[in-house]
Amino acid sequence: MIGHGFMGAAHSQGWRVAPRFFDLPLDPQMSVIVGRDAANVEASARKWGWAETATDWRDVISRDDIDVVDIVTPGDTHAEIAIAALEAGKHVLCEKPLANTVAEAEAMTASAESAAARGVRSMVGFTYRRVPATTFARDLVAAGRIGEVRQVRAEYLQDWLMDAESPLTWRLKKEHAGSGALGDIGAHAIDLTEYITGQRVTGVSGIIETLVKERPLLGEGHGLSGTASAERGAVTVDDVALFTGRLSSGALASFEATRFRTGRKNALRIEISGSTGAIAFDLERLNELEFYDATLPSTGLGFQRILVTEQDHPYLAPWWPTGHMLGYEHGFSNQVFDFVTAIADETAPSPSFADGLHVQRVLDAVERSSEAGSVWVSTGD
Amino acid sequence: MIGHGFMGAAHSQGWRVAPRFFDLPLDPQMSVIVGRDAANVEASARKWGWAETATDWRDVISRDDIDVVDIVTPGDTHAEIAIAALEAGKHVLCEKPLANTVAEAEAMTASAESAAARGVRSMVGFTYRRVPATTFARDLVAAGRIGEVRQVRAEYLQDWLMDAESPLTWRLKKEHAGSGALGDIGAHAIDLTEYITGQRVTGVSGIIETLVKERPLLGEGHGLSGTASAERGAVTVDDVALFTGRLSSGALASFEATRFRTGRKNALRIEISGSTGAIAFDLERLNELEFYDATLPSTGLGFQRILVTEQDHPYLAPWWPTGHMLGYEHGFSNQVFDFVTAIADETAPSPSFADGLHVQRVLDAVERSSEAGSVWVSTGD
Amino acid sequence: MIGHGFMGAAHSQGWRVAPRFFDLPLDPQMSVIVGRDAANVEASARKWGWAETATDWRDVISRDDIDVVDIVTPGDTHAEIAIAALEAGKHVLCEKPLANTVAEAEAMTASAESAAARGVRSMVGFTYRRVPATTFARDLVAAGRIGEVRQVRAEYLQDWLMDAESPLTWRLKKEHAGSGALGDIGAHAIDLTEYITGQRVTGVSGIIETLVKERPLLGEGHGLSGTASAERGAVTVDDVALFTGRLSSGALASFEATRFRTGRKNALRIEISGSTGAIAFDLERLNELEFYDATLPSTGLGFQRILVTEQDHPYLAPWWPTGHMLGYEHGFSNQVFDFVTAIADETAPSPSFADGLHVQRVLDAVERSSEAGSVWVSTGD
Amino acid sequence: MIGHGFMGAAHSQGWRVAPRFFDLPLDPQMSVIVGRDAANVEASARKWGWAETATDWRDVISRDDIDVVDIVTPGDTHAEIAIAALEAGKHVLCEKPLANTVAEAEAMTASAESAAARGVRSMVGFTYRRVPATTFARDLVAAGRIGEVRQVRAEYLQDWLMDAESPLTWRLKKEHAGSGALGDIGAHAIDLTEYITGQRVTGVSGIIETLVKERPLLGEGHGLSGTASAERGAVTVDDVALFTGRLSSGALASFEATRFRTGRKNALRIEISGSTGAIAFDLERLNELEFYDATLPSTGLGFQRILVTEQDHPYLAPWWPTGHMLGYEHGFSNQVFDFVTAIADETAPSPSFADGLHVQRVLDAVERSSEAGSVWVSTGD
Repeated sequence: MIGHGFMGAAHSQGWRVAPRFFDLPLDPQMSVIVGRDAANVEASARKWGWAETATDWRDVISRDDIDVVDIVTPGDTHAEIAIAALEAGKHVLCEKPLANTVAEAEAMTASAESAAARGVRSMVGFTYRRVPATTFARDLVAAGRIGEVRQVRAEYLQDWLMDAESPLTWRLKKEHAGSGALGDIGAHAIDLTEYITGQRVTGVSGIIETLVKERPLLGEGHGLSGTASAERGAVTVDDVALFTGRLSSGALASFEATRFRTGRKNALRIEISGSTGAIAFDLERLNELEFYDATLPSTGLGFQRILVTEQDHPYLAPWWPTGHMLGYEHGFSNQVFDFVTAIADETAPSPSFADGLHVQRVLDAVERSSEAGSVWVSTGD
Repeated sequence: MIGHGFMGAAHSQGWRVAPRFFDLPLDPQMSVIVGRDAANVEASARKWGWAETATDWRDVISRDDIDVVDIVTPGDTHAEIAIAALEAGKHVLCEKPLANTVAEAEAMTASAESAAARGVRSMVGFTYRRVPATTFARDLVAAGRIGEVRQVRAEYLQDWLMDAESPLTWRLKKEHAGSGALGDIGAHAIDLTEYITGQRVTGVSGIIETLVKERPLLGEGHGLSGTASAERGAVTVDDVALFTGRLSSGALASFEATRFRTGRKNALRIEISGSTGAIAFDLERLNELEFYDATLPSTGLGFQRILVTEQDHPYLAPWWPTGHMLGYEHGFSNQVFDFVTAIADETAPSPSFADGLHVQRVLDAVERSSEAGSVWVSTGD
Repeated sequence: MIGHGFMGAAHSQGWRVAPRFFDLPLDPQMSVIVGRDAANVEASARKWGWAETATDWRDVISRDDIDVVDIVTPGDTHAEIAIAALEAGKHVLCEKPLANTVAEAEAMTASAESAAARGVRSMVGFTYRRVPATTFARDLVAAGRIGEVRQVRAEYLQDWLMDAESPLTWRLKKEHAGSGALGDIGAHAIDLTEYITGQRVTGVSGIIETLVKERPLLGEGHGLSGTASAERGAVTVDDVALFTGRLSSGALASFEATRFRTGRKNALRIEISGSTGAIAFDLERLNELEFYDATLPSTGLGFQRILVTEQDHPYLAPWWPTGHMLGYEHGFSNQVFDFVTAIADETAPSPSFADGLHVQRVLDAVERSSEAGSVWVSTGD
Repeated sequence: MIGHGFMGAAHSQGWRVAPRFFDLPLDPQMSVIVGRDAANVEASARKWGWAETATDWRDVISRDDIDVVDIVTPGDTHAEIAIAALEAGKHVLCEKPLANTVAEAEAMTASAESAAARGVRSMVGFTYRRVPATTFARDLVAAGRIGEVRQVRAEYLQDWLMDAESPLTWRLKKEHAGSGALGDIGAHAIDLTEYITGQRVTGVSGIIETLVKERPLLGEGHGLSGTASAERGAVTVDDVALFTGRLSSGALASFEATRFRTGRKNALRIEISGSTGAIAFDLERLNELEFYDATLPSTGLGFQRILVTEQDHPYLAPWWPTGHMLGYEHGFSNQVFDFVTAIADETAPSPSFADGLHVQRVLDAVERSSEAGSVWVSTGD
């Protein structure tokens, strides 16, 4: 595993726990964790249970005893590491967003496709596809339970930047994060829309905006938890992204990604309205899915709150009995299960780098639309 | 109409509005309103649109041009008025509780039955049966949509007495109110249980309790809005009633009526669990009914929030289009519709005085159980 | 009252009920109801309690004994009637949208302003401002309880057109309705945003679209309830409108108006995110307001579900005790109270025709933006 | 760890994950797992990551290299194992219910107290105390945020036995399970009430009942997942328990434990009404706590939905950022943290065996009350 921030913790938990619940066809070992600072990465290794540490990812990629590389670094480093790993014949799981630019994502996708021809697998970590409720939503749509998709509303609402004195971390700098709310959380809203509907976003009109334009520089420490200094620097990514997209079928979808929706902590929500039904999901209640069956008699219509904790629901069988809730991190174990299974089965895991590239193209189109007064921009699909 | 307090306002609104929405088979006139204080009743007549006033109900009952008597006085006066009215050949709508004692309720019921033989109609005002969602709940149960009733939970939760300095109104004195939370709101929980399940409560075990035993006497004014004086008097009715009942089928039901459930304003709630489904209702969201269909596949189970505002739902057709909400008072118009229709059709309106008597017997059994250390007491059914 | 469709019923109920609950400074009489078809309007008069009928509104406007004209006809007739009535010195209440075009709305506003100089009052019927919860929301924002507005999300979601065989009523023809979801319900979302925030929408980018482009022509009957014929005609108004707006303060707002959000019956929702708090409202739960106070300690943060049924809440005192719900129609009584009070007090009622004109300008800007590939269009503010 | 059923899985996950998130003062090793069937326990060891297996718990208890014994067997074996382990100087974590009878629980408590004098620690596994929201609820009550407790409603609702053909597992036999819904889930409702209020249940009146009196015997297999045979046997435990209790302060509490509340999967709910506020919790939404502050102005009253995912909430700091949900199993890691910390700090962990004994006494009193026609029975406190 390359990287050891917040995502490092989540992925580590996925690797540690998955084998205890799922019958994995392979037996993954938590071998080496890589970080630039030897002391820090050593601490992470102890904490999360990795056998060895390294400070140069190139050394690890060249090792014969490494089969899988899991990339959880900031987006600006993904392309270089992933391409090198794929070329070295390692299966690659790369955290989203796939990259910070379309060009990087294209290079990665090309590399992934050529690697696939050699049996080397790659996957991008849109983990929210692996919440049982979202997978189940996809299944319902695929089974025709809501008919034709008529409209989509997808939003990812947070409020952790509402304090104007919150410091200028790497997530607020374009050179590291690529973009702000748009790429960090809007990407999930786009991916979930495409995943559940089985369609692509083909064009967009949007606006992105930075609400708090300067923030205190980080003093000591780093990451989300660093302390603020007296000096201030420019926020170079967006705080809010509002956009409308058109799907392959012609249906309209409206999107919002924001870190300023006061009181909303982690509300990735999606509602899909179809010709014979609808579904609604909210990550703040991740064990629930709302389903509306418009084919019922008029007196019996209504959104149904399904507790997605039955043994027959996606991913659920190896976990707990009905009514016992899963949390945020279970998606990472489910992801490990899918990735390891694909490697063992010699099939292409999903979402692919091409899927990640497509999301990148949508993000890019939103930025270009915003610069051009919100005119419609095609994503190339 | 005899009486002119809070219920007078609600019933007046029922009489005024019903003819504007429903096609009534008769044309009710708001003729005379009766109250002991001439000035007060005059003000009520003007406010609510009654043509005349009177201070002695006996005078009104003896008038030939009066066909219907609507009784909205405190419970201790119901028996005398209702019996006199029925004997005078007037159709009687009597606000719940039917009476303050079983003996009074028995006399009223006997009178109602003998009046019915002469074509004189009587009905007790359990208005919450006429919320479209509760009527629809009854229809679902009657249609077998939840199978056999297995368990019932019925509760009526308020908190308006949680302030220990709230004054000693007539509702807190046994001689006027008969009982406290038990008779005032617990009666609704019992009636709704019997109405929706179509069963009787045959026995109970319970406890009633007064939490605040003394309160400031009312100074000037009266009713809910009177101001408190420095002197204090004993609260002689219960604040909380907790009881378990057995239904005709043997199923258990648990009840709670309280004016001390902090934060709950008017939460008359009922949940009925059946062998193939369940329903849940909350008066604080009176346009909604939750329905659970246990016959669906395991992955598709979940309580459904039905907006009971469709044209095909009970009582809804004459009101507003789908999605336009009804309020508290609409039940009173629906009640007028049912009562007037029964008179015109020469059928027995429901709930009958016998239904009201039965509720009174349950209330009485709860009080006796409470006095006897909560042992089970039969209601005589 | 001119007109006697759905809005006629609602306004009639407002005029009938308001005097029974509010202490009105004047005593409004339900004098004449006007409709083109003598038999139909006669039926409406009987049903809703109007003393006389007329088939030509000009006759009524010229009568000396008429002081107030309430216009509830389709939007294409508003301008002519309202201007004539104002010139005849009648106070005018005009149902929204003020008009079908900006030009008409401008003429009406000019007329209203000149009438105001002569003491003649005018108001546009954005009734959802008079739901106690929305008025209370405005009060909270005005009192600074959410700080500076950072973002707004306003949506009005219905699904009554999701059936492609639903017939082509006047609401689906541009010549009568002016626009579709945009003007019919989007107008409410815009008005509520401007009302609660106290700001104007100064520019927009949007898209409007007709999802079902042809529908069966109406055979016999008319209105929403007409039956469909075999022939089909073109739907000339939008089914869905998605747009982004900028408020006077620079804050972004995103809007959606649709008749295709499957399962949403009447969901006018607004959420306003501020620097120190947030509010959220949903018309499907119109007695509730959600409020988030961001100044509380971090462990105590959370949206609060306020039951807006306290005596101290706006409009509530004359209605029912705490916890007794209001419905859709109460806003019309509240509107009558405000309008009559303004007439008696010789003050300008709100929302004014100028407010209605501004909403019309926003609607117009959305249409122009949509035609121009969603580029930003100024509303002129 | 002795035992390896459902609770074995949950406890194993607790032991495995706790050291990765918490800074534990000791370094627990997953040494030996014990089960009667060598092959089964071997499989469990591999699955859950235990180093060794054993088939006789006595052998393990006598080993010097074992410091802690975690008991997750059915209730009828707890007393013997726990007492032996404590006498052997092992710290003991015993899953709830502490035992199947009061006598066993008394013996265990005596043993625990004498062991404590020698520095040997014991704790009973009421894990739902360790959901952050319930711990936070306790903190709010302890801090006086709801004032004096006036009423409690606690219920644990499931529906997994509603199918009358569901087989006769050990949980439905009195000799193994001790009791049914009462002891299995009612025990949690009692413990949570006592934990959050800081009071004891001093007396009860109740009824317990078996709704489905015969069920198919288990054929092959065992546990929840066994298949049914054609033969039937008697269910010897209760399906439903309804009871009222009095707390130390005199306040009334009402309880329900049932496996027949159709549609409720794992709804452990508690609502505590106090003189200045209230709290409400539902395990089906375990990351949320509802809080009502009655000291706010009347217009601002309402239950607040607090997402208990802030760093400052109990147990949260080592887990994920705000808005990232925890699941069922996190309570087991939190429990390991508390237990290990108590051992290291040489303090008494909580809940103690005495706490477990008290719950047992309440369960016993409910059974005796039920047998005696629901008369009040003291719990001895």
